[in-house]
Amino acid sequence: MTRPPAEQPLVPDAPPGPVPTVGELSEAELLERVLPLLLRPAAAPAGADQVLLGPGDDCAVVAAPDGRYVITTDTQVQDQDFRLAWPGGAVTTGYDTGVKCAAQNLADVAAMGAVPSAVVVSLTLPPGTPVSWPQDFARGLVDGFEAMGADRCAVVGGDLGAGRELSVTATVTGDLEGRDPVRRSGAGEGGTVALAGTTGRAAAGVALLEDRRYRPGQDELLDGLAAAQLRPCAPVPAGPAAARAGATAMIDLSDGLLRDAGRVAAASGVVVDLDGAAVADLAQPLRPAARLLGADPRDWVLTGGEDHGLLAVFPRGTPLPGMFRAIGSCAPAPPAHDDTLPRVLVDGRAPHLALGHPVGEGWDHFEP
Amino acid sequence: MTRPPAEQPLVPDAPPGPVPTVGELSEAELLERVLPLLLRPAAAPAGADQVLLGPGDDCAVVAAPDGRYVITTDTQVQDQDFRLAWPGGAVTTGYDTGVKCAAQNLADVAAMGAVPSAVVVSLTLPPGTPVSWPQDFARGLVDGFEAMGADRCAVVGGDLGAGRELSVTATVTGDLEGRDPVRRSGAGEGGTVALAGTTGRAAAGVALLEDRRYRPGQDELLDGLAAAQLRPCAPVPAGPAAARAGATAMIDLSDGLLRDAGRVAAASGVVVDLDGAAVADLAQPLRPAARLLGADPRDWVLTGGEDHGLLAVFPRGTPLPGMFRAIGSCAPAPPAHDDTLPRVLVDGRAPHLALGHPVGEGWDHFEP
Repeated sequence: MTRPPAEQPLVPDAPPGPVPTVGELSEAELLERVLPLLLRPAAAPAGADQVLLGPGDDCAVVAAPDGRYVITTDTQVQDQDFRLAWPGGAVTTGYDTGVKCAAQNLADVAAMGAVPSAVVVSLTLPPGTPVSWPQDFARGLVDGFEAMGADRCAVVGGDLGAGRELSVTATVTGDLEGRDPVRRSGAGEGGTVALAGTTGRAAAGVALLEDRRYRPGQDELLDGLAAAQLRPCAPVPAGPAAARAGATAMIDLSDGLLRDAGRVAAASGVVVDLDGAAVADLAQPLRPAARLLGADPRDWVLTGGEDHGLLAVFPRGTPLPGMFRAIGSCAPAPPAHDDTLPRVLVDGRAPHLALGHPVGEGWDHFEP
Repeated sequence: MTRPPAEQPLVPDAPPGPVPTVGELSEAELLERVLPLLLRPAAAPAGADQVLLGPGDDCAVVAAPDGRYVITTDTQVQDQDFRLAWPGGAVTTGYDTGVKCAAQNLADVAAMGAVPSAVVVSLTLPPGTPVSWPQDFARGLVDGFEAMGADRCAVVGGDLGAGRELSVTATVTGDLEGRDPVRRSGAGEGGTVALAGTTGRAAAGVALLEDRRYRPGQDELLDGLAAAQLRPCAPVPAGPAAARAGATAMIDLSDGLLRDAGRVAAASGVVVDLDGAAVADLAQPLRPAARLLGADPRDWVLTGGEDHGLLAVFPRGTPLPGMFRAIGSCAPAPPAHDDTLPRVLVDGRAPHLALGHPVGEGWDHFEP
């Protein structure tokens, strides 16, 4: 991470007077106002080499120097993945949505050990959306690339359309630089389980934003947690660094530590045993928010996704890259392991959650 | 095109009894029911070689044999890009939406002269959507690939989420097979302007579907036009064939002949002169629909997109590949050409539209 995304107030000033909306412009006029803001990184010399043909034709053309590319896609929908206005008074700006779009897509590329190379982005906007919203989105996306160390990544195309609800889909590709992709299935017995970035902060943030007891702008620490939800910062360079250091498995923590570590464990045929002291360390900075809301900060650490930290497994004894800290180890799966037994333990025991979620649960879009 | 997408009734039978909806399933349960339907082509030996790692990890890994890939993205939103139910009684099925998603993305790849290689697809579904809808979508997408001659193309990843309106975004990549991309800017004076596929049929189809005077299932010819709107069939292999035959410019006709030919003309610094007889030929099969609705079929040919035909420019005298027919030629732009003069003529004169659209206009998502 070269620097955090630009500081933004949680409750921006309302603009004076009437606001121009996207419904008042033609598609071409809107594109004219948004596209130049998206193209910033492509113009930088560092990113120029892999974009062989940028936006403006039927497709872009991107270099794949080692003859392969990784690809992933993610969608955010208003009122599903973010609220435009939160009960406590905070708002999700276009800038926030751009940063979050960058984080969730870049983290997936990083989790393969790849370096993000190109993005196409589709925006669906209700006609009443202020023109400044997609402009802010573009700034947040591009600032997010830079802030998260993906400065070679360039926007090479997209789609702009109308709809009843605001929705953003980005597809990111990445370059493996000649290395094997780091899959979920490579964790070995005795391996060190390590975390880059954070986990639980974004979950504490959404709990605050959803609760009227939290008022933005009155407590810097709480505002920081809210910002971790609104504008997560994924540790993108940690992905390729882990691959270079010999990581044998890696995953983006988008659905929570228990669920995502469980995926690595299941794919690799091991059990992940988290270190209780490491979990407590991660919970420590969340205590003020937990006190305010009467919650258990450990629940946020174990089940909260959306920080987009990276969980990697290294062979025992591997010196960890600087961005990683050890938080557990891999144990052999019991001989007759079945899916009713937890794949992820804390200090050798099935984790207990204060809120009584089923063990291993994180976020589910369609949960009844 | 190896064969047309499976025949589907325009007014499908309603299923008996209550229909299971996506809101009753978890994301994992839904994925279990949809993913196997999407993976069909990847299992085929012809497509297996370029998918180095399929869905199930943070990213897929796709081969780019010549060290480059083309990439494009397109979104369809309910009630913007399609209606689920049309005034005359026809419905847009999940299958239709899948075929259309294939057509609009594959055509963009083909228009660069590339061969489609991989797709990631994001579905946003209201909780009340029948589970059969995303399943039908998957079948339509995969059938669409095969029907349009993109049988090497495989679905390698996606995202599945909830929202208030149904929305589909696909990103497709393609392989240039060592050739230069065919851009919009390469049309030269005297070049032959040629069309693969059709134009105007999908526009006639949407006019029928929007009008209660059209009743589906009573006239095979009219039903065929409606189907061209619901399930367009892009001439995908014509793209690489044009590139191999020496096409110097190419574009996907998604926004209408006047507008898209105008883009080629502007990018290339020429004027496109369409052959009035060729336009009349294209209008001929639309006459029954035009009679029913009191419309001018020539308007549909000149301004209707969504058939996803390909418009290519070949150096004069080039033998055209089998899928193309000549429909005009390129003339030098007048010395002091400015943007108030039409870039596209018919028989040397500014085209006149019966409906009085501004010349050069096609579809605009945000048109006030």
